Amino acid sequence: MVPISLLVFSCVIISSSIVQSSTDADQYSPYEGRQGRYEEGDNPYVFDRERFRTISSSRAGEIKALPNFRQQSELFKGIEKYIITCIEMKPNSLLKPHCIDADWVLFVVEGSGHIAYVQQESNNLVQRRLEEGDVFVVPAGQLFYLINSGGRQVFRLANLLYNGATPGQYQPFYVAGVRNPESVFSALSREVLEAAFNSKEGVEQMLSGKEEQNPGAIIQLHPEELERITGAQSRESMPAGHEQNPFNILSHRPTFQNNYGKIIEVDEREHSQLGLLKVVVAATILESGSMLVPNYNTRATKFGIVINGEGILEMACPHLAGGGGGRSYGGGGGGGQGQYEEGQQRDISYQKVRARLRPGIVFMVPRAHPYTTIASPGRPLLILCFEVTDHRNIRKFLTGKNNVLKELDKRVLGRSFGIHPEEMSRILESQKNEVIVRGPNQMGDNQGPMSF
Amino acid sequence: MVPISLLVFSCVIISSSIVQSSTDADQYSPYEGRQGRYEEGDNPYVFDRERFRTISSSRAGEIKALPNFRQQSELFKGIEKYIITCIEMKPNSLLKPHCIDADWVLFVVEGSGHIAYVQQESNNLVQRRLEEGDVFVVPAGQLFYLINSGGRQVFRLANLLYNGATPGQYQPFYVAGVRNPESVFSALSREVLEAAFNSKEGVEQMLSGKEEQNPGAIIQLHPEELERITGAQSRESMPAGHEQNPFNILSHRPTFQNNYGKIIEVDEREHSQLGLLKVVVAATILESGSMLVPNYNTRATKFGIVINGEGILEMACPHLAGGGGGRSYGGGGGGGQGQYEEGQQRDISYQKVRARLRPGIVFMVPRAHPYTTIASPGRPLLILCFEVTDHRNIRKFLTGKNNVLKELDKRVLGRSFGIHPEEMSRILESQKNEVIVRGPNQMGDNQGPMSF
Amino acid sequence: MVPISLLVFSCVIISSSIVQSSTDADQYSPYEGRQGRYEEGDNPYVFDRERFRTISSSRAGEIKALPNFRQQSELFKGIEKYIITCIEMKPNSLLKPHCIDADWVLFVVEGSGHIAYVQQESNNLVQRRLEEGDVFVVPAGQLFYLINSGGRQVFRLANLLYNGATPGQYQPFYVAGVRNPESVFSALSREVLEAAFNSKEGVEQMLSGKEEQNPGAIIQLHPEELERITGAQSRESMPAGHEQNPFNILSHRPTFQNNYGKIIEVDEREHSQLGLLKVVVAATILESGSMLVPNYNTRATKFGIVINGEGILEMACPHLAGGGGGRSYGGGGGGGQGQYEEGQQRDISYQKVRARLRPGIVFMVPRAHPYTTIASPGRPLLILCFEVTDHRNIRKFLTGKNNVLKELDKRVLGRSFGIHPEEMSRILESQKNEVIVRGPNQMGDNQGPMSF
Repeated sequence: MVPISLLVFSCVIISSSIVQSSTDADQYSPYEGRQGRYEEGDNPYVFDRERFRTISSSRAGEIKALPNFRQQSELFKGIEKYIITCIEMKPNSLLKPHCIDADWVLFVVEGSGHIAYVQQESNNLVQRRLEEGDVFVVPAGQLFYLINSGGRQVFRLANLLYNGATPGQYQPFYVAGVRNPESVFSALSREVLEAAFNSKEGVEQMLSGKEEQNPGAIIQLHPEELERITGAQSRESMPAGHEQNPFNILSHRPTFQNNYGKIIEVDEREHSQLGLLKVVVAATILESGSMLVPNYNTRATKFGIVINGEGILEMACPHLAGGGGGRSYGGGGGGGQGQYEEGQQRDISYQKVRARLRPGIVFMVPRAHPYTTIASPGRPLLILCFEVTDHRNIRKFLTGKNNVLKELDKRVLGRSFGIHPEEMSRILESQKNEVIVRGPNQMGDNQGPMSF
Repeated sequence: MVPISLLVFSCVIISSSIVQSSTDADQYSPYEGRQGRYEEGDNPYVFDRERFRTISSSRAGEIKALPNFRQQSELFKGIEKYIITCIEMKPNSLLKPHCIDADWVLFVVEGSGHIAYVQQESNNLVQRRLEEGDVFVVPAGQLFYLINSGGRQVFRLANLLYNGATPGQYQPFYVAGVRNPESVFSALSREVLEAAFNSKEGVEQMLSGKEEQNPGAIIQLHPEELERITGAQSRESMPAGHEQNPFNILSHRPTFQNNYGKIIEVDEREHSQLGLLKVVVAATILESGSMLVPNYNTRATKFGIVINGEGILEMACPHLAGGGGGRSYGGGGGGGQGQYEEGQQRDISYQKVRARLRPGIVFMVPRAHPYTTIASPGRPLLILCFEVTDHRNIRKFLTGKNNVLKELDKRVLGRSFGIHPEEMSRILESQKNEVIVRGPNQMGDNQGPMSF
Repeated sequence: MVPISLLVFSCVIISSSIVQSSTDADQYSPYEGRQGRYEEGDNPYVFDRERFRTISSSRAGEIKALPNFRQQSELFKGIEKYIITCIEMKPNSLLKPHCIDADWVLFVVEGSGHIAYVQQESNNLVQRRLEEGDVFVVPAGQLFYLINSGGRQVFRLANLLYNGATPGQYQPFYVAGVRNPESVFSALSREVLEAAFNSKEGVEQMLSGKEEQNPGAIIQLHPEELERITGAQSRESMPAGHEQNPFNILSHRPTFQNNYGKIIEVDEREHSQLGLLKVVVAATILESGSMLVPNYNTRATKFGIVINGEGILEMACPHLAGGGGGRSYGGGGGGGQGQYEEGQQRDISYQKVRARLRPGIVFMVPRAHPYTTIASPGRPLLILCFEVTDHRNIRKFLTGKNNVLKELDKRVLGRSFGIHPEEMSRILESQKNEVIVRGPNQMGDNQGPMSF
């Protein structure tokens, strides 16, 4: 058993020739490849909290974003229009009114609050309460503000943004502010503003407002102030039949559920606004020690965000395989490592991508890449997933009762694996459960190397 | 008042820390930034006539195009498939028959003429008269020719092209020509042509035609020749129920109109062919001294082309803000100036983009960027706009009676601006007009710095 | 007549000022330009077999792919998501079960075989027989295997792939394999696999299978083994009303047919799965010595793959024209040669692209580029075409009875060509046939330079 102190780095990626005892593996440095070492920055699929960059920070909260995916690797060209961000608001705080130039789907990781936004067509202000597990879509250009109205709790959001206009980045446009943030008005000439507002004195006041003691995009409110704001709005708002509604993914009917966990998926058919970002929002809950069996998405690229619990991600990646060279069919630059070298044919092989999961870790699983997630013993592992796709995606399982391999001719499989067809059948039938099963930690040898 | 002679450069961009008197501003060089000077080529949003490059030029006219937007700035990746061109034909001239490899929407800036084109499905030739203010769509690959049949007037077109196949450029394919332009036939072997036309002598004639004295894509016709051509066609053409019809945007019902001006917008729902380019065509007419109040487009990127009159554009831009550094969330290369530097969080601020408008100036307003245009005293300012967008765009106004800020909670706004909520309300209510209002020049002090 | 031995290089591109005798031309080196010589690698439109790179090769067959188009030329940005590959399987062979991360349309060039695939929604295995001329679509992520069940014949496929996620490349994911290919399982930890399969011994067996003597993605089967596999499946499969059906393009009703040849086109309206790749599949069959008249596609970029016969391709290209400079309107980088140089306006001209066609040659015709293909005397020329397009494409013919020029005003054409309108009419009427006509070789002088 590896002492926990060796695992302080947030994400370990190891690899093996075919299999190796993970005791050996743990002697590797992080990101060490089969035929050489990968620099930490070279692993394109897993992001820990330190990879986030601060967009805005104040005593009352902060906004952070992962760096532009495309600049990380050519492999991410297909998702270059997406951005992952997180927002953290301290108790009784306000994120000042602004809009952004990207479509935005938010998930409430922790706490509760209110979002107030101006309806696109009618110009009416609507206020919604947001609870833990809620998902809500804000289209590009919609003016909004956020309030942490959840008492003493932090209000924390995980977000996916889609910007088709300036891929890989987004910008906020604050309509009100003093110095940091400025309001967008401060970039217009005073005489223009005076004419626009039809008030010389008004503009003078607006542009010489008193800076907060602790300025920033997120500021502290007095609890009574906050209550007056949210209280006033809740009386006015909540129109019936309004399409811009939050939904709670955690209380949604699961797509799959058994004793080991469940999967919940919500797509455009159930919530039409998700179509703006071409995204399916999903949650995977693995009970203590359980695992999602190796599976792949036929078309979607999945962003996974660990919300609660700890565990392991393993993924097979052809792009990183092949040592210093890698393969990239069609001669394409296959990521950091992979450049096809002319005339040199390589064996077809797969690199193991392995990462320790804990709250705040973001990982990415490209289409068709087999992967598995496993919950550490102790408590459930909750992963929120944004799955972006061009057409209807299907999840295919590689082990378990509904295993796609069971349908193949056993003679074909046997010949490919170099084993007897009857053995093949027996192997594929051993697992009686499906989708989510007992993980390695719950197997006989629970002192084994997969313990955490 | 600044003497007009100081304003000979066609486009002034100045900026200020928050506000500054424009008297100071006019001492700046063009494109001088807040914390340093911008080279003229660094401002990505405004193009004067000198930025156009000549595609084809002859005594009878010329065709010019703005350079590839993407090559100007990473900020323009989202519009890299669009190209802006202009065509100028002298009286009694012909633009020779050709097709281009881009979808094309044209606007008649000046004069009148005829376009003759071969219908896509039927192969019939159709001829349409084009008047000042007409908009017409020519899909990629459609064979056409243009004639200036407007007597002694120049015939001038402003154009938006969309090329999904080779973004940022387009090519013409002339089916008839001698040396400049060649016909596409001249690139095929003579024996191939002889077989294709089934005529040795015919091909000989076709390939040895007499060059015009003044060759070029646009050539002079004798007035009678011209009349025979347009006269003949007008009897044959104009089928009923044909979807490829010009419409006159200037005589279209306005979306908004008051004493200060009007806005006219035509989209795909009214003219289905605009869907090919994902474009809304709009015209803004500001009466002498009036202004369009600060506003933004939720999703569209707007190309503005000044047709008549003079004025000022002001825009708030977060990408250019932040001095030498700029901000670019998501770590994306935010244009020439803006590169996010790791570990360094910057204040959220906005750069003023300011440009003098006069006929021929093209400007671009990215989505969500607040901007205003103001007509100089003396005569109306007419701006033609191509607005390109992925979904339905909405225009939001930031001052005036239908101001989106009025809907927000005044306590929230007040706290964000650092002023009292009641003051906030008073400021937002001062402007009783909406959308288009009296500009700064019509205000009390008309000796003020905004005079031209 | 040029001795055949001079034509051993597979693709000749020559050019001429306007026309030149091809006797002169044949003294040129390949790819020699008008005002200088083009390096062989500079011609972006024609690919011979040597340009293919080996993805996988074994005694039983091989898989090859053309290099990433985008890396060849900026001109190919619009088709960067497409990849051309070919598969060749020796008699009695199996391509092991896997999926790829791209949508795939296959065409059977030679031989016959079976494809077995797991239905996306139901997980059922379906097996289809594939004959020469069959077209079949496999969506991204669909698990499949291929069998050459055509007796002693080689089974050969030509393929178009579309990968929106990682443009320009694709990756295979083998679910079963030993060392080359590995199975994707070999990249997962042993304890993970043991839990997933619920079998320690099973995983041990699966990961220590006996390597084939001749490993590879394609392996040899015993004829009886093969028969048991395909025989077993054919009894279980072939559900009625299943949308994933092969169709035979060669036995499809032609769009056009005359004594000189025929054109067959199948699009999304007839076979909905083609919509996944936005592709029209077409076949052009030119009888011995016949030619497809010069024509262009209004919107589509065409990939042509020569299946049978020999011949010539000629195409007019504006991007390559203009000597060392070239033209690129909109200032865009117009391919290897073409960079617009500021201030320098060039004549509008076209470069001749000429290539010898023989089985295995792949060529590309961008939208709006006029081109012609001509069958050598002796036997028919069969070209399979993948035409990719954003909207409905229309083919326009430049000579022949349905020639688009005939519709234009003869005075306009005459003036453009510098010849008399009546001569113009006579030239355009000489060819009584349309679409496919007698080629240059069937004309009087069959000792002429177009002989092969």
